[in-house]
Amino acid sequence: MDSGPVLSIDIGGTKISTAILTREGRLLAKRRAPSQAQEGPRRMIDRILTQARETVAEAALPGGAIDLIGISCGGPLDPVKGIVLKPPNLPGWDGTPLRDLVAAGLGLDASRAHLENDANAAALAELRFGAAQGRRHALYLTMSTGIGGGLILDGRLYRGATFNAGEVGHQRIVPDGPLCGCGLRGCLEAVASGSGIARRLAERFDSLSPALRQAAGSAESITARHLVETARAGDACALEFLEETNRFLAQGIANLVFILNPQIIILGTIVSHAGDLMLAPLREKVREICPPVLAADLEIVASPLGRRLEELSGLAVALDGGPSGPR
Amino acid sequence: MDSGPVLSIDIGGTKISTAILTREGRLLAKRRAPSQAQEGPRRMIDRILTQARETVAEAALPGGAIDLIGISCGGPLDPVKGIVLKPPNLPGWDGTPLRDLVAAGLGLDASRAHLENDANAAALAELRFGAAQGRRHALYLTMSTGIGGGLILDGRLYRGATFNAGEVGHQRIVPDGPLCGCGLRGCLEAVASGSGIARRLAERFDSLSPALRQAAGSAESITARHLVETARAGDACALEFLEETNRFLAQGIANLVFILNPQIIILGTIVSHAGDLMLAPLREKVREICPPVLAADLEIVASPLGRRLEELSGLAVALDGGPSGPR
Repeated sequence: MDSGPVLSIDIGGTKISTAILTREGRLLAKRRAPSQAQEGPRRMIDRILTQARETVAEAALPGGAIDLIGISCGGPLDPVKGIVLKPPNLPGWDGTPLRDLVAAGLGLDASRAHLENDANAAALAELRFGAAQGRRHALYLTMSTGIGGGLILDGRLYRGATFNAGEVGHQRIVPDGPLCGCGLRGCLEAVASGSGIARRLAERFDSLSPALRQAAGSAESITARHLVETARAGDACALEFLEETNRFLAQGIANLVFILNPQIIILGTIVSHAGDLMLAPLREKVREICPPVLAADLEIVASPLGRRLEELSGLAVALDGGPSGPR
Repeated sequence: MDSGPVLSIDIGGTKISTAILTREGRLLAKRRAPSQAQEGPRRMIDRILTQARETVAEAALPGGAIDLIGISCGGPLDPVKGIVLKPPNLPGWDGTPLRDLVAAGLGLDASRAHLENDANAAALAELRFGAAQGRRHALYLTMSTGIGGGLILDGRLYRGATFNAGEVGHQRIVPDGPLCGCGLRGCLEAVASGSGIARRLAERFDSLSPALRQAAGSAESITARHLVETARAGDACALEFLEETNRFLAQGIANLVFILNPQIIILGTIVSHAGDLMLAPLREKVREICPPVLAADLEIVASPLGRRLEELSGLAVALDGGPSGPR
């Protein structure tokens, strides 16, 4: 049964999505629920299994069953063993054999289930259904709370020695810069991720423009979204702050271009939302830094998958089939 | 004749080496001569061909002929077309079809000759004969006048979209730092390569220790070698300067570890020469920056190939057989 429908599971820090899709990406059923990550892995996995069974039932499949499962989850994790290692957004999950628990709970052999970290899963989704289709060398950068990366090199996902390649958010951009969630200073993530942007905004809240302060309400509640929306309305202060952010991000992208010489760089959430407010300056700045042999034909785009990314990530993980190494 | 001897050609800015080797790496004959790069490609290639014929004759091969050629040359170049593009150390070579000229000049079909840039060639040599043997993910960093990289990912050379991946020397380490040969500021190459170290030493020559100034003679003649030798003798000033250099280099290596999660990082010339004066602090600093999941099993070593690198590079290029794309 190598053409049957696929169960896609996306486990995030705030929501869990389960979806049934054809292998071509057509959505047959989908459910979303809050993660309630504070409950820990045992109760969360019970809820994931219940939600998955309901989604399967809703899809009313002819044979009644799915034949492949793909799970996207925050890393670090071991895709060969199917084990979640130490995800910062899922407290208490250290060492949870997520893949086998899900497969067993749904009556499938573990060989039919695959687990991948969210950035890698998104890169696989872009390769199969999005902006990386037909590209041999593509980098996907998550741009939400943190900055992670999924590297498509020579046509396939590159995972690295311990499956943790793509931690592009922890290259250092500003020596002695702001503290990052990882404990280092000046990481790309500390200055250009959602949380990094919010922190930088909060620190200088009193000197921000009235429009930006009013949009946010308070230093505690200001986010990258307030920045983008106020910049879009033409506020000079927001535009200047965004320009600084673009400069940091362009340097991080340029480093990756020097090292990996990709055809395309695909940027997630924040850049998708900001569109040309970020894309146009990023393209320009990367071309200023990198020589034509690297930058002339380089594409820098926002992910075209939008909200479909969460269901297509798990599907792409299932279809990829995981690393070729022994389980 | 898929087991015959190989002609290895290494074309550098200062010397040309030609060697005949068995496929297992046994040296049968070798010649070295000054490059005289100022003569331009036409006369240089004539001399390369003459030197190659002499080396072949010296090897006194049973059948009288080599059946494979591997050429290592400064990049950027196009290994599919066999063309040298714009090498900074070979003036006037832009667009020279080096591979085909060499093959034709020696009476071989162009399909028996392969061309690769020096950093990639060195990485291939490490993979086949050196410290990367048996490793799936290995990074080789040249550490001489400039800093280049050759990336072995998933067991093979990763070249990137336009064959220019591995330009690890141009990631930015010090914003607004010293000017690099590439025109940017604060590149890893500008602070930690041979030329970068020499420039930093020259700039503060008058405040260097007497031992260091005496070893070098003048600001114009000071090199990384003077630094390493004076540091080895225990000079505090040299040790402090080397410590700063190690910090820059460790940050560049850590960025690569975050992005590529390799098993081993192999460092060339300067680090080979400095040994544990650089290796021990580099290992320590990279472990301080990168988390255990990336750094616990990471090896950081000096290239074990020494002077054999130049002949083994071309051999490894020949045996690799070049990118699989169309010629």
